[in-house]
Amino acid sequence: MAPQNMAPQNMAPQNMAESVATSPATLNRLSVYLRSLQTLLREGVKRISSQELADRFQLSPAQIRKDLARFGEFGVRGVGYDVADLAARLTALLGLDRRQRLLIVGVGNLGSALGRYLGFNDESFQVVAGVDSAPQLIGKRISGVPIEPYDDLQGVVERSGAEIAVLTVPAEAAQEAYGRLVDAGIRAILNFAPVSIVERPGVRLKNVDLRIHLEELTFFLAARG
Amino acid sequence: MAPQNMAPQNMAPQNMAESVATSPATLNRLSVYLRSLQTLLREGVKRISSQELADRFQLSPAQIRKDLARFGEFGVRGVGYDVADLAARLTALLGLDRRQRLLIVGVGNLGSALGRYLGFNDESFQVVAGVDSAPQLIGKRISGVPIEPYDDLQGVVERSGAEIAVLTVPAEAAQEAYGRLVDAGIRAILNFAPVSIVERPGVRLKNVDLRIHLEELTFFLAARG
Repeated sequence: MAPQNMAPQNMAPQNMAESVATSPATLNRLSVYLRSLQTLLREGVKRISSQELADRFQLSPAQIRKDLARFGEFGVRGVGYDVADLAARLTALLGLDRRQRLLIVGVGNLGSALGRYLGFNDESFQVVAGVDSAPQLIGKRISGVPIEPYDDLQGVVERSGAEIAVLTVPAEAAQEAYGRLVDAGIRAILNFAPVSIVERPGVRLKNVDLRIHLEELTFFLAARG
Repeated sequence: MAPQNMAPQNMAPQNMAESVATSPATLNRLSVYLRSLQTLLREGVKRISSQELADRFQLSPAQIRKDLARFGEFGVRGVGYDVADLAARLTALLGLDRRQRLLIVGVGNLGSALGRYLGFNDESFQVVAGVDSAPQLIGKRISGVPIEPYDDLQGVVERSGAEIAVLTVPAEAAQEAYGRLVDAGIRAILNFAPVSIVERPGVRLKNVDLRIHLEELTFFLAARG
Protein backbone atom coordinates (compact mmCIF):
# COMPACT_ATOMS: atom_id res chain seq x y z
CA MET A 1 0.00 0.00 0.00
CA ALA A 2 1.31 3.38 -0.95
CA PRO A 3 1.33 5.82 1.95
CA GLN A 4 -0.62 9.04 1.63
CA ASN A 5 2.38 11.09 0.63
CA MET A 6 2.87 8.99 -2.47
CA ALA A 7 -0.32 10.20 -4.13
CA PRO A 8 0.16 10.69 -7.88
CA GLN A 9 -0.25 14.44 -7.80
CA ASN A 10 3.00 14.63 -5.84
CA MET A 11 4.75 13.42 -8.95
CA ALA A 12 4.10 16.68 -10.73
CA PRO A 13 7.04 19.05 -10.71
CA GLN A 14 6.54 22.14 -8.54
CA ASN A 15 5.91 24.22 -11.61
CA MET A 16 6.47 24.15 -15.32
CA ALA A 17 9.59 26.30 -15.20
CA GLU A 18 11.32 23.84 -12.87
CA SER A 19 10.27 20.93 -14.96
CA VAL A 20 11.44 22.42 -18.23
CA ALA A 21 14.73 23.36 -16.56
CA THR A 22 15.47 19.75 -15.63
CA SER A 23 18.80 18.87 -17.21
CA PRO A 24 19.04 16.27 -19.96
CA ALA A 25 21.41 14.27 -17.73
CA THR A 26 18.79 14.08 -14.97
CA LEU A 27 16.07 13.17 -17.44
CA ASN A 28 18.23 10.48 -18.98
CA ARG A 29 18.71 8.96 -15.54
CA LEU A 30 14.94 8.97 -14.97
CA SER A 31 14.62 7.02 -18.24
CA VAL A 32 17.19 4.52 -17.01
CA TYR A 33 15.40 4.15 -13.66
CA LEU A 34 12.13 3.51 -15.46
CA ARG A 35 13.72 0.93 -17.72
CA SER A 36 15.27 -0.78 -14.69
CA LEU A 37 11.93 -0.81 -12.86
CA GLN A 38 10.24 -2.32 -15.92
CA THR A 39 12.80 -5.12 -15.87
CA LEU A 40 12.05 -5.73 -12.19
CA LEU A 41 8.31 -5.73 -12.89
CA ARG A 42 8.76 -8.42 -15.53
CA GLU A 43 10.65 -10.44 -12.93
CA GLY A 44 7.85 -10.01 -10.40
CA VAL A 45 9.81 -7.86 -7.96
CA LYS A 46 7.35 -5.79 -5.89
CA ARG A 47 9.52 -3.63 -3.67
CA ILE A 48 13.12 -2.45 -3.82
CA SER A 49 15.40 -0.08 -1.92
CA SER A 50 17.51 2.57 -3.67
CA GLN A 51 20.58 0.57 -2.63
CA GLU A 52 19.27 -2.65 -4.19
CA LEU A 53 18.17 -0.81 -7.33
CA ALA A 54 21.62 0.77 -7.60
CA ASP A 55 23.46 -2.50 -7.06
CA ARG A 56 21.37 -4.35 -9.59
CA PHE A 57 21.70 -1.81 -12.42
CA GLN A 58 25.07 -0.20 -11.65
CA LEU A 59 23.56 3.06 -10.48
CA SER A 60 24.30 5.39 -7.57
CA PRO A 61 21.87 5.04 -4.63
CA ALA A 62 22.42 8.64 -3.52
CA GLN A 63 21.81 9.86 -7.06
CA ILE A 64 18.59 7.85 -7.31
CA ARG A 65 17.28 9.37 -4.08
CA LYS A 66 18.29 12.88 -5.12
CA ASP A 67 16.80 12.61 -8.61
CA LEU A 68 13.49 11.26 -7.38
CA ALA A 69 13.26 13.74 -4.51
CA ARG A 70 13.25 16.48 -7.11
CA PHE A 71 9.84 15.36 -8.29
CA GLY A 72 8.05 14.41 -5.11
CA GLU A 73 7.94 11.92 -2.25
CA PHE A 74 8.56 8.31 -3.12
CA GLY A 75 9.32 5.26 -1.10
CA VAL A 76 9.40 4.87 2.63
CA ARG A 77 12.57 4.82 4.70
CA GLY A 78 13.42 1.23 5.55
CA VAL A 79 10.73 -0.12 3.24
CA GLY A 80 11.90 1.06 -0.15
CA TYR A 81 10.01 1.81 -3.31
CA ASP A 82 6.86 0.11 -4.56
CA VAL A 83 8.14 -0.96 -7.98
CA ALA A 84 4.83 -0.78 -9.86
CA ASP A 85 3.87 2.52 -8.29
CA LEU A 86 7.21 4.19 -8.97
CA ALA A 87 7.25 2.85 -12.54
CA ALA A 88 3.76 4.24 -13.15
CA ARG A 89 4.70 7.62 -11.80
CA LEU A 90 7.93 7.86 -13.80
CA THR A 91 5.97 6.78 -16.87
CA ALA A 92 3.56 9.68 -16.33
CA LEU A 93 6.34 12.14 -15.53
CA LEU A 94 8.14 11.26 -18.77
CA GLY A 95 4.92 11.66 -20.73
CA LEU A 96 4.87 7.98 -21.66
CA ASP A 97 1.42 7.24 -20.27
CA ARG A 98 -0.04 7.85 -23.70
CA ARG A 99 1.22 7.11 -27.18
CA GLN A 100 3.24 9.93 -28.73
CA ARG A 101 2.70 10.74 -32.38
CA LEU A 102 5.85 10.95 -34.49
CA LEU A 103 6.32 12.67 -37.84
CA ILE A 104 9.31 11.62 -39.95
CA VAL A 105 10.65 14.56 -41.97
CA GLY A 106 12.86 13.19 -44.74
CA VAL A 107 12.16 9.55 -45.47
CA GLY A 108 15.55 8.43 -46.79
CA ASN A 109 17.52 5.47 -45.46
CA LEU A 110 17.88 6.86 -42.00
CA GLY A 111 14.40 8.36 -41.72
CA SER A 112 12.61 5.22 -42.82
CA ALA A 113 14.74 3.00 -40.57
CA LEU A 114 14.20 5.26 -37.57
CA GLY A 115 10.47 5.24 -38.27
CA ARG A 116 10.47 1.47 -38.18
CA TYR A 117 12.80 1.29 -35.20
CA LEU A 118 11.14 3.90 -32.99
CA GLY A 119 7.55 3.22 -33.87
CA PHE A 120 7.59 -0.54 -34.15
CA ASN A 121 5.63 -2.53 -31.63
CA ASP A 122 5.96 0.26 -29.12
CA GLU A 123 3.44 1.31 -26.52
CA SER A 124 4.76 4.84 -26.29
CA PHE A 125 5.52 5.91 -29.84
CA GLN A 126 3.66 5.70 -33.10
CA VAL A 127 4.66 7.04 -36.50
CA VAL A 128 1.60 8.94 -37.75
CA ALA A 129 3.08 10.62 -40.82
CA GLY A 130 6.11 10.95 -43.06
CA VAL A 131 6.98 13.72 -45.49
CA ASP A 132 9.60 14.00 -48.20
CA SER A 133 10.39 16.38 -51.05
CA ALA A 134 11.20 13.58 -53.52
CA PRO A 135 8.17 13.05 -55.82
CA GLN A 136 8.98 9.36 -56.33
CA LEU A 137 8.50 8.69 -52.59
CA ILE A 138 5.06 10.26 -52.30
CA GLY A 139 2.39 7.63 -51.73
CA LYS A 140 4.85 4.97 -50.64
CA ARG A 141 4.45 3.90 -47.05
CA ILE A 142 6.52 4.25 -43.89
CA SER A 143 5.53 2.29 -40.81
CA GLY A 144 2.11 1.80 -42.36
CA VAL A 145 1.40 5.45 -43.19
CA PRO A 146 1.65 7.03 -46.65
CA ILE A 147 4.49 9.44 -47.35
CA GLU A 148 3.12 12.89 -48.13
CA PRO A 149 4.67 15.93 -49.83
CA TYR A 150 7.01 18.09 -47.77
CA ASP A 151 5.33 21.12 -49.33
CA ASP A 152 2.17 20.25 -47.42
CA LEU A 153 3.92 20.06 -44.05
CA GLN A 154 1.42 22.31 -42.28
CA GLY A 155 -1.52 20.24 -43.51
CA VAL A 156 0.19 16.97 -42.63
CA VAL A 157 0.85 18.14 -39.07
CA GLU A 158 -2.77 19.26 -38.66
CA ARG A 159 -4.32 16.09 -40.08
CA SER A 160 -1.99 13.65 -38.32
CA GLY A 161 -1.87 15.34 -34.94
CA ALA A 162 1.90 14.76 -34.92
CA GLU A 163 3.61 16.14 -31.82
CA ILE A 164 7.24 15.11 -32.24
CA ALA A 165 9.19 15.51 -35.47
CA VAL A 166 12.16 13.29 -36.34
CA LEU A 167 14.29 15.44 -38.62
CA THR A 168 16.28 13.34 -41.07
CA VAL A 169 16.81 15.74 -43.95
CA PRO A 170 20.21 16.70 -45.43
CA ALA A 171 22.22 19.24 -43.44
CA GLU A 172 21.52 22.07 -45.87
CA ALA A 173 17.75 21.58 -45.56
CA ALA A 174 17.56 21.26 -41.78
CA GLN A 175 17.24 24.90 -40.71
CA GLU A 176 14.41 25.60 -43.12
CA ALA A 177 12.61 22.40 -42.12
CA TYR A 178 13.02 23.29 -38.45
CA GLY A 179 11.38 26.68 -39.06
CA ARG A 180 8.51 25.18 -40.98
CA LEU A 181 7.91 22.55 -38.29
CA VAL A 182 7.78 25.22 -35.59
CA ASP A 183 5.44 27.33 -37.73
CA ALA A 184 3.21 24.28 -38.11
CA GLY A 185 2.95 23.96 -34.33
CA ILE A 186 5.53 21.25 -33.58
CA ARG A 187 7.23 21.83 -30.20
CA ALA A 188 9.61 18.84 -29.94
CA ILE A 189 12.16 17.89 -32.58
CA LEU A 190 14.73 15.10 -32.68
CA ASN A 191 17.33 16.25 -35.22
CA PHE A 192 19.76 13.90 -36.98
CA ALA A 193 20.99 16.42 -39.57
CA PRO A 194 24.68 17.19 -38.92
CA VAL A 195 24.25 20.93 -38.48
CA SER A 196 23.79 23.48 -35.66
CA ILE A 197 20.22 24.70 -35.87
CA VAL A 198 19.39 28.24 -34.73
CA GLU A 199 16.65 27.56 -32.20
CA ARG A 200 13.40 29.33 -31.47
CA PRO A 201 11.99 29.80 -27.96
CA GLY A 202 9.48 27.35 -26.52
CA VAL A 203 10.63 24.47 -28.70
CA ARG A 204 12.69 21.54 -27.44
CA LEU A 205 15.38 20.41 -29.87
CA LYS A 206 17.45 17.29 -29.27
CA ASN A 207 20.39 16.79 -31.62
CA VAL A 208 21.73 13.32 -32.34
CA ASP A 209 24.84 13.71 -34.46
CA LEU A 210 25.96 10.21 -35.38
CA ARG A 211 29.01 11.44 -37.21
CA ILE A 212 30.25 13.31 -34.14
CA HIS A 213 29.71 10.22 -32.00
CA LEU A 214 31.81 8.20 -34.42
CA GLU A 215 34.53 10.83 -34.26
CA GLU A 216 34.84 10.31 -30.50
CA LEU A 217 35.78 6.75 -31.34
CA THR A 218 38.19 7.57 -34.15
CA PHE A 219 39.94 10.09 -31.89
CA PHE A 220 40.42 7.37 -29.30
CA LEU A 221 41.76 4.92 -31.88
CA ALA A 222 44.13 7.55 -33.33
CA ALA A 223 45.38 8.46 -29.84
CA ARG A 224 46.09 4.78 -29.09
CA GLY A 225 48.22 4.83 -32.22
CA MET B 1 52.83 30.47 -44.39
CA ALA B 2 52.56 28.54 -41.18
CA PRO B 3 55.07 29.65 -38.58
CA GLN B 4 57.51 27.08 -37.21
CA ASN B 5 55.46 26.44 -34.11
CA MET B 6 52.56 25.19 -36.22
CA ALA B 7 54.41 22.11 -37.44
CA PRO B 8 52.12 19.08 -37.60
CA GLN B 9 53.84 17.21 -34.80
CA ASN B 10 52.60 19.90 -32.40
CA MET B 11 49.11 18.59 -33.05
CA ALA B 12 49.85 15.42 -31.16
CA PRO B 13 48.56 15.43 -27.61
CA GLN B 14 51.30 15.51 -24.97
CA ASN B 15 50.80 11.85 -24.27
CA MET B 16 48.29 9.13 -24.77
CA ALA B 17 46.85 9.39 -21.28
CA GLU B 18 45.99 13.05 -21.79
CA SER B 19 44.50 12.36 -25.13
CA VAL B 20 42.34 9.50 -23.96
CA ALA B 21 41.20 11.64 -21.03
CA THR B 22 39.84 14.34 -23.32
CA SER B 23 36.15 14.74 -22.49
CA PRO B 24 33.46 13.83 -25.00
CA ALA B 25 32.23 17.43 -24.83
CA THR B 26 35.64 18.77 -25.87
CA LEU B 27 35.93 16.19 -28.64
CA ASN B 28 32.47 17.02 -29.90
CA ARG B 29 33.48 20.67 -30.13
CA LEU B 30 36.58 19.72 -32.13
CA SER B 31 34.28 17.88 -34.55
CA VAL B 32 32.13 21.00 -34.86
CA TYR B 33 35.20 23.19 -35.45
CA LEU B 34 36.38 20.84 -38.18
CA ARG B 35 32.97 20.83 -39.83
CA SER B 36 32.90 24.64 -39.71
CA LEU B 37 36.39 24.86 -41.22
CA GLN B 38 35.35 22.50 -44.01
CA THR B 39 32.44 24.80 -44.82
CA LEU B 40 34.86 27.75 -44.95
CA LEU B 41 37.23 25.79 -47.19
CA ARG B 42 34.43 25.12 -49.65
CA GLU B 43 33.74 28.85 -49.67
CA GLY B 44 37.39 29.63 -50.37
CA VAL B 45 38.10 31.30 -47.02
CA LYS B 46 41.84 31.07 -46.31
CA ARG B 47 42.28 32.64 -42.91
CA ILE B 48 39.97 33.31 -39.96
CA SER B 49 40.23 34.55 -36.40
CA SER B 50 38.67 32.72 -33.47
CA GLN B 51 36.24 35.63 -33.14
CA GLU B 52 35.14 35.40 -36.77
CA LEU B 53 34.87 31.62 -36.57
CA ALA B 54 32.76 31.96 -33.43
CA ASP B 55 30.48 34.61 -34.92
CA ARG B 56 29.94 32.67 -38.09
CA PHE B 57 29.04 29.34 -36.46
CA GLN B 58 27.57 30.46 -33.14
CA LEU B 59 30.55 29.30 -31.11
CA SER B 60 32.51 30.80 -28.22
CA PRO B 61 35.82 32.41 -29.26
CA ALA B 62 37.38 31.82 -25.82
CA GLN B 63 36.29 28.19 -25.91
CA ILE B 64 37.79 27.73 -29.37
CA ARG B 65 41.14 29.12 -28.23
CA LYS B 66 41.10 27.00 -25.06
CA ASP B 67 40.13 23.79 -26.83
CA LEU B 68 42.77 24.17 -29.52
CA ALA B 69 45.48 25.22 -27.04
CA ARG B 70 45.04 21.85 -25.41
CA PHE B 71 46.48 20.15 -28.45
CA GLY B 72 49.25 22.47 -29.54
CA GLU B 73 49.99 25.88 -30.97
CA PHE B 74 47.72 27.13 -33.71
CA GLY B 75 47.16 30.44 -35.29
CA VAL B 76 49.04 33.64 -34.81
CA ARG B 77 47.84 36.51 -32.65
CA GLY B 78 46.36 39.19 -34.87
CA VAL B 79 46.54 36.99 -37.95
CA GLY B 80 44.23 34.14 -37.06
CA TYR B 81 44.13 30.56 -38.18
CA ASP B 82 45.14 29.18 -41.56
CA VAL B 83 41.86 27.42 -42.42
CA ALA B 84 43.34 24.60 -44.53
CA ASP B 85 46.15 23.95 -42.08
CA LEU B 86 43.90 23.87 -39.02
CA ALA B 87 41.39 21.66 -40.83
CA ALA B 88 44.14 19.21 -41.79
CA ARG B 89 45.46 19.06 -38.27
CA LEU B 90 42.02 18.56 -36.69
CA THR B 91 41.37 15.86 -39.29
CA ALA B 92 44.52 14.04 -38.20
CA LEU B 93 43.82 14.57 -34.50
CA LEU B 94 40.35 13.06 -34.88
CA GLY B 95 41.78 10.10 -36.77
CA LEU B 96 39.93 11.07 -39.94
CA ASP B 97 42.99 11.25 -42.18
CA ARG B 98 42.38 7.67 -43.24
CA ARG B 99 39.23 5.69 -43.84
CA GLN B 100 37.92 3.89 -40.78
CA ARG B 101 36.58 0.38 -41.18
CA LEU B 102 33.14 -0.25 -39.69
CA LEU B 103 31.56 -3.56 -38.74
CA ILE B 104 27.77 -3.65 -38.35
CA VAL B 105 26.73 -6.14 -35.65
CA GLY B 106 23.04 -6.91 -36.08
CA VAL B 107 21.79 -6.05 -39.54
CA GLY B 108 18.13 -5.33 -38.83
CA ASN B 109 16.32 -2.15 -39.84
CA LEU B 110 18.51 0.13 -37.80
CA GLY B 111 21.80 -1.65 -38.48
CA SER B 112 21.34 -1.72 -42.23
CA ALA B 113 20.18 1.90 -42.36
CA LEU B 114 23.11 3.05 -40.23
CA GLY B 115 25.48 1.12 -42.46
CA ARG B 116 24.13 2.95 -45.48
CA TYR B 117 24.00 6.29 -43.70
CA LEU B 118 27.43 6.23 -42.07
CA GLY B 119 29.35 4.49 -44.81
CA PHE B 120 27.77 6.03 -47.86
CA ASN B 121 29.90 8.26 -50.02
CA ASP B 122 32.07 9.09 -47.07
CA GLU B 123 35.79 9.75 -47.11
CA SER B 124 36.27 8.79 -43.49
CA PHE B 125 34.11 5.72 -42.94
CA GLN B 126 33.58 2.50 -44.82
CA VAL B 127 31.43 -0.47 -43.91
CA VAL B 128 33.70 -3.50 -44.35
CA ALA B 129 31.52 -6.21 -42.81
CA GLY B 130 28.15 -7.02 -41.30
CA VAL B 131 27.17 -9.94 -39.11
CA ASP B 132 23.81 -11.26 -37.98
CA SER B 133 22.52 -14.36 -36.22
CA ALA B 134 19.48 -14.73 -38.53
CA PRO B 135 20.26 -17.46 -41.12
CA GLN B 136 18.01 -15.83 -43.74
CA LEU B 137 20.19 -12.71 -43.77
CA ILE B 138 23.49 -14.49 -44.37
CA GLY B 139 24.81 -13.81 -47.85
CA LYS B 140 22.61 -10.76 -48.39
CA ARG B 141 24.52 -7.53 -48.71
CA ILE B 142 24.88 -4.41 -46.61
CA SER B 143 26.62 -1.38 -48.11
CA GLY B 144 28.09 -3.68 -50.74
CA VAL B 145 29.50 -6.31 -48.40
CA PRO B 146 27.97 -9.73 -47.70
CA ILE B 147 26.37 -10.35 -44.31
CA GLU B 148 28.23 -13.10 -42.47
CA PRO B 149 27.26 -15.31 -39.52
CA TYR B 150 27.49 -13.79 -36.06
CA ASP B 151 28.97 -17.09 -34.88
CA ASP B 152 32.07 -16.32 -36.94
CA LEU B 153 32.60 -12.88 -35.42
CA GLN B 154 36.28 -13.44 -34.66
CA GLY B 155 37.00 -14.55 -38.22
CA VAL B 156 35.00 -11.68 -39.70
CA VAL B 157 36.94 -9.13 -37.66
CA GLU B 158 40.26 -10.67 -38.70
CA ARG B 159 39.47 -10.91 -42.40
CA SER B 160 37.80 -7.50 -42.70
CA GLY B 161 40.24 -5.53 -40.57
CA ALA B 162 37.24 -3.85 -38.92
CA GLU B 163 38.21 -1.36 -36.21
CA ILE B 164 34.91 0.14 -35.10
CA ALA B 165 31.80 -1.92 -34.36
CA VAL B 166 28.30 -0.47 -34.66
CA LEU B 167 26.24 -2.52 -32.22
CA THR B 168 22.62 -2.76 -33.31
CA VAL B 169 21.50 -5.98 -31.66
CA PRO B 170 18.51 -6.36 -29.32
CA ALA B 171 19.08 -5.19 -25.74
CA GLU B 172 19.28 -8.71 -24.36
CA ALA B 173 22.08 -9.65 -26.77
CA ALA B 174 24.22 -6.54 -26.36
CA GLN B 175 26.40 -7.50 -23.40
CA GLU B 176 27.41 -10.81 -24.92
CA ALA B 177 28.12 -9.20 -28.29
CA TYR B 178 30.21 -6.51 -26.58
CA GLY B 179 32.33 -9.18 -24.90
CA ARG B 180 32.82 -11.10 -28.13
CA LEU B 181 33.80 -7.94 -30.01
CA VAL B 182 36.39 -7.07 -27.37
CA ASP B 183 37.71 -10.64 -27.42
CA ALA B 184 38.01 -10.35 -31.21
CA GLY B 185 40.19 -7.26 -30.83
CA ILE B 186 37.71 -4.43 -31.41
CA ARG B 187 38.57 -1.37 -29.30
CA ALA B 188 35.84 1.11 -30.30
CA ILE B 189 32.11 0.40 -30.19
CA LEU B 190 29.11 2.58 -31.01
CA ASN B 191 26.20 0.98 -29.17
CA PHE B 192 22.55 1.55 -30.06
CA ALA B 193 21.13 -1.23 -27.90
CA PRO B 194 19.04 0.31 -25.07
CA VAL B 195 20.98 -1.22 -22.21
CA SER B 196 23.85 -0.34 -19.85
CA ILE B 197 26.83 -2.40 -20.90
CA VAL B 198 29.40 -3.46 -18.30
CA GLU B 199 32.59 -2.13 -19.84
CA ARG B 200 36.07 -3.60 -20.08
CA PRO B 201 39.25 -1.50 -19.78
CA GLY B 202 41.00 -0.13 -22.84
CA VAL B 203 37.86 -0.12 -24.96
CA ARG B 204 35.95 3.03 -25.90
CA LEU B 205 32.18 2.59 -25.80
CA LYS B 206 29.83 5.30 -27.03
CA ASN B 207 26.15 4.75 -26.27
CA VAL B 208 23.47 6.28 -28.45
CA ASP B 209 20.12 5.56 -26.85
CA LEU B 210 17.47 6.86 -29.22
CA ARG B 211 14.63 5.97 -26.92
CA ILE B 212 16.13 7.99 -24.09
CA HIS B 213 16.58 10.95 -26.43
CA LEU B 214 12.92 10.74 -27.37
CA GLU B 215 11.98 10.65 -23.71
CA GLU B 216 13.66 14.02 -23.16
CA LEU B 217 11.16 15.37 -25.67
CA THR B 218 8.11 13.62 -24.24
CA PHE B 219 9.02 14.90 -20.77
CA PHE B 220 9.10 18.42 -22.15
CA LEU B 221 5.74 18.00 -23.88
CA ALA B 222 4.16 16.50 -20.77
CA ALA B 223 5.51 19.34 -18.61
CA ARG B 224 4.07 21.93 -21.01
CA GLY B 225 0.74 20.21 -20.43
